[in-house]
Amino acid sequence: MGETRRSTAAPAGLSSVLALLRDGVPRSRAELVELTGHARSTIAQRVDLLLKSGLLTHGGAASSTGGRPPETFAFAPASRIVLAADLGAAHLQMAVTDLGGTILAQRREVAAISDGPEAVLARVCALGIELLDEVSRPRRDLVGVGVGVPGPVEHETGRPRNPPIMPGWDGADIPGVLAASFRTPVLVDNDVNLMAAGEHWRLYADVDDLVFVKVATGIGAGIITAGRVYRGAQGAAGDLGHIAVPGGEPVACTCGNTGCLEALASRGAVRRAWLAAGRSAEEAGGVSALIATGDTLALDLTWRAGRDIGSVLAGTVSLLNPSVVVIGGSMAMDNPVLIEAISDVILTRSLALATRDLRIVGTGTGSQAAVLGASRMVADHVLSDEAIESLLA
Amino acid sequence: MGETRRSTAAPAGLSSVLALLRDGVPRSRAELVELTGHARSTIAQRVDLLLKSGLLTHGGAASSTGGRPPETFAFAPASRIVLAADLGAAHLQMAVTDLGGTILAQRREVAAISDGPEAVLARVCALGIELLDEVSRPRRDLVGVGVGVPGPVEHETGRPRNPPIMPGWDGADIPGVLAASFRTPVLVDNDVNLMAAGEHWRLYADVDDLVFVKVATGIGAGIITAGRVYRGAQGAAGDLGHIAVPGGEPVACTCGNTGCLEALASRGAVRRAWLAAGRSAEEAGGVSALIATGDTLALDLTWRAGRDIGSVLAGTVSLLNPSVVVIGGSMAMDNPVLIEAISDVILTRSLALATRDLRIVGTGTGSQAAVLGASRMVADHVLSDEAIESLLA
Repeated sequence: MGETRRSTAAPAGLSSVLALLRDGVPRSRAELVELTGHARSTIAQRVDLLLKSGLLTHGGAASSTGGRPPETFAFAPASRIVLAADLGAAHLQMAVTDLGGTILAQRREVAAISDGPEAVLARVCALGIELLDEVSRPRRDLVGVGVGVPGPVEHETGRPRNPPIMPGWDGADIPGVLAASFRTPVLVDNDVNLMAAGEHWRLYADVDDLVFVKVATGIGAGIITAGRVYRGAQGAAGDLGHIAVPGGEPVACTCGNTGCLEALASRGAVRRAWLAAGRSAEEAGGVSALIATGDTLALDLTWRAGRDIGSVLAGTVSLLNPSVVVIGGSMAMDNPVLIEAISDVILTRSLALATRDLRIVGTGTGSQAAVLGASRMVADHVLSDEAIESLLA
Repeated sequence: MGETRRSTAAPAGLSSVLALLRDGVPRSRAELVELTGHARSTIAQRVDLLLKSGLLTHGGAASSTGGRPPETFAFAPASRIVLAADLGAAHLQMAVTDLGGTILAQRREVAAISDGPEAVLARVCALGIELLDEVSRPRRDLVGVGVGVPGPVEHETGRPRNPPIMPGWDGADIPGVLAASFRTPVLVDNDVNLMAAGEHWRLYADVDDLVFVKVATGIGAGIITAGRVYRGAQGAAGDLGHIAVPGGEPVACTCGNTGCLEALASRGAVRRAWLAAGRSAEEAGGVSALIATGDTLALDLTWRAGRDIGSVLAGTVSLLNPSVVVIGGSMAMDNPVLIEAISDVILTRSLALATRDLRIVGTGTGSQAAVLGASRMVADHVLSDEAIESLLA
C-alpha cells in the first residue's frame, strides 16, 4: 500500500530530495521524510536511486541524542558537468562547471556575434570540445549545455527573436546545432537574465529580490523575484535600455523613439560624445580607465551616463523594491565613478522605505556572471521533475 | 506503514488537497493521489477530515470507463465567511464574502481616514457586526478579517508604516483592535495590492503577470507575478506615484522631489490645474464626468494626466512585460479618455514584443476590487499549511 504515482515522468520525490540537499547540508532519511512530506518508504527508495546515480553521497553522521547516529546524505555537485557559453557582442566566453557552479576550465576570446550563427556556433562547438578534453571527464558526465546571447530569446524554443544587435540570428536553432555536437539538452537565454542568475547564485543566494543591470553595448536588466529569474509574459522583462530617461536629452534611438536610456548612456553613446568633443577614436575604448588619469572629459561623460542610468533605475527601485541592485557589464567593471553616480540618483529619487536597506554594488562575479548563470540554468533543468530521470540511467 | 509527519502544525496534504480543489473542479481520491503525490492512505484520511469540517462536499460522479463511477469531492467555498474592509482616504467599504469571493452583503459610506485609527476602527467594528448580522450566519463561520489601507503596511505585523495620507495611523495596531472584536485572524495590506489581487482573482485568474494601477488621491500600483502579489524587500513595491515622469513638468511633490507622477496626474494635481484655470471648486470633483459634456478643459486635463501616467507605465511595461495592465481607482472609473491616453503612450513608447499581446483595460471589479482582494488574502491565509488546522475543530 501507499506507493504514490505522479503524472510526470520521474517518481515523486526525486527532485524534491535534490532541491533540499542542494543547499549543501547533509540530512538523514528521517529529516528528508519530515521536510518533503513523502512517506518513509518513498524516501528510502529515492535515496537509494540517487546514491546509485552518484548524485548523492554519504554525508557525515547526524548529531543524535543517543544510540547509533543516523546515516546522512549529501548532494554531490561534482558528480556531473555542464558546458556554459556566453556569447557577447564582441566576445565568446566558455566554461565547464560542475552542478554547484565550480568552474573547472574556462576560456575567453574575441569574437563578433555579427559573424552569424554558422561561424559562431562552429567555434562554440570547437572550443567546447577543447574545454571538455581539458577537464578529462568521461563524456557521459556532461548533462547539458547552457548558452547566453545578447538579445531576446523565445524561452520555450531557445531561439533568438528579432535580436537588434545579432544580425542573422533571428530564429536561429541554437539548441539544434549544439545538441547535434554534444548530445545533451541545450538551454538558451538572454545574457542579462543569466548574469542575474549567476550573480544571485554565487553571491546573493539568501536574497529574494535582486536586479542586475548590464551596462555595455546595450543596457538591460535581469530581474530576480522570489529567488528566480522573472521573464514576464513574452520573456521581454528587464528591457531597461528603451525606457525614457526622466529629464534626459531627446536623443534619437535605434528603436525609433527618442530619449531612451541606451541612446544616452550605453558604450556607443559615450563613444559618440567622446568623438564629438574632438578626442581620438583610439582612446574611446578606454574611457573608464582614463578617469584614473584625471581626464575630466572621461569623468564628466561617465558621471552623466551614471546619472541617466540612475534616473531610470530610481523608477525600477520604486516599482520593485529590490534588496540588491548589481551594476555589471563591460562599462561598469572597475568603474566606481559610474556606480557612485548611479547610487547618488537612486538614493535621492526613490522613497526612503525602498532605499533604507538597499545595496547598490558592482558585480562580484564580473565577466563570469553569464557563464555561471548558464550553468545554473542547466543544473536547475536537469535536476527538475521533468528531466531528473535522464540522470539515473 | 508510511504515515508522514511535517514540521508544520497541520498534517501533510490538507492544504495541497484544498489548493487543488479551489479551482472548482471535483476530483476523485485517485486523482488527488496522482496530483499531490501523497500516499493513498494519507489522501483518504485528509478527505475525511475536510468533509467533516464542511470545507469539502461530495461532488458529482467522475466519468469512468466501466463499473461503479468513483466518488468525487469538491471545495465548498460557501462553508465559511470572511469580513473584508477597504479603508480609503475618503470612504469605508465593507463586505461579507464566502471563501470563493461571492459577496453576501456589502456597504459603502463616506469616511475620512484622517479621523484616525480609534474613530475609524470603531466604525469598522460596528459596520462589520451589522453586516455579519445581515447574512445570518453563525459567528463561528467567520474565519478572518481582511483590511486594506491607503498606505504602506508592514507585512508581518499588519501595521501601517509612515503612511503619508493617514495622519495618526503610523504603527497603529489594526490587527489587535479588530481581533479583539471579531476573535479571528486579521490581515492588513496596502489597498493597491488588494485591488490587484481582487481583480486578478475574479477576472484574470489565468494570467500570471498583471499590473493594477490605482489613480485617485494617490497613484500606486499592485503587481501580480506568478499569480501572486509581489511586495519587494520592504513591502514597498509598486510605488508608481513617486517615479519621475519622463518629459514631465518639474512640479514640486509632497515627497520633497520634483516631477513625480503623483504631483502631475493625481486627483489633487488635476484639481489644482482646474482651479488655476479659473474654474469652480464645485465642478472640480466631477472633472471626468464633465468630459461627456464636451468641456474642453476637462478633456485637456484628463488627456494630460493620462499621458503622464502612460509615460511612467511605459517604463513599467518595458521592465515587467505584463500580460494585463488594469487602470482603476476613482479617477479612472467611467473615464475612457484617461485610459485611451494611457494606452496611447504605452503602445508608442514600449517595444513591440512587450506590447504585442498586452491588454490595457479599465477595472472590471470597480469599487469592489479592494474588498475582493482583502477576502482573497484571508482565504489564502486560512487555507494555508500554517492556518488550516484552525478550521478543522
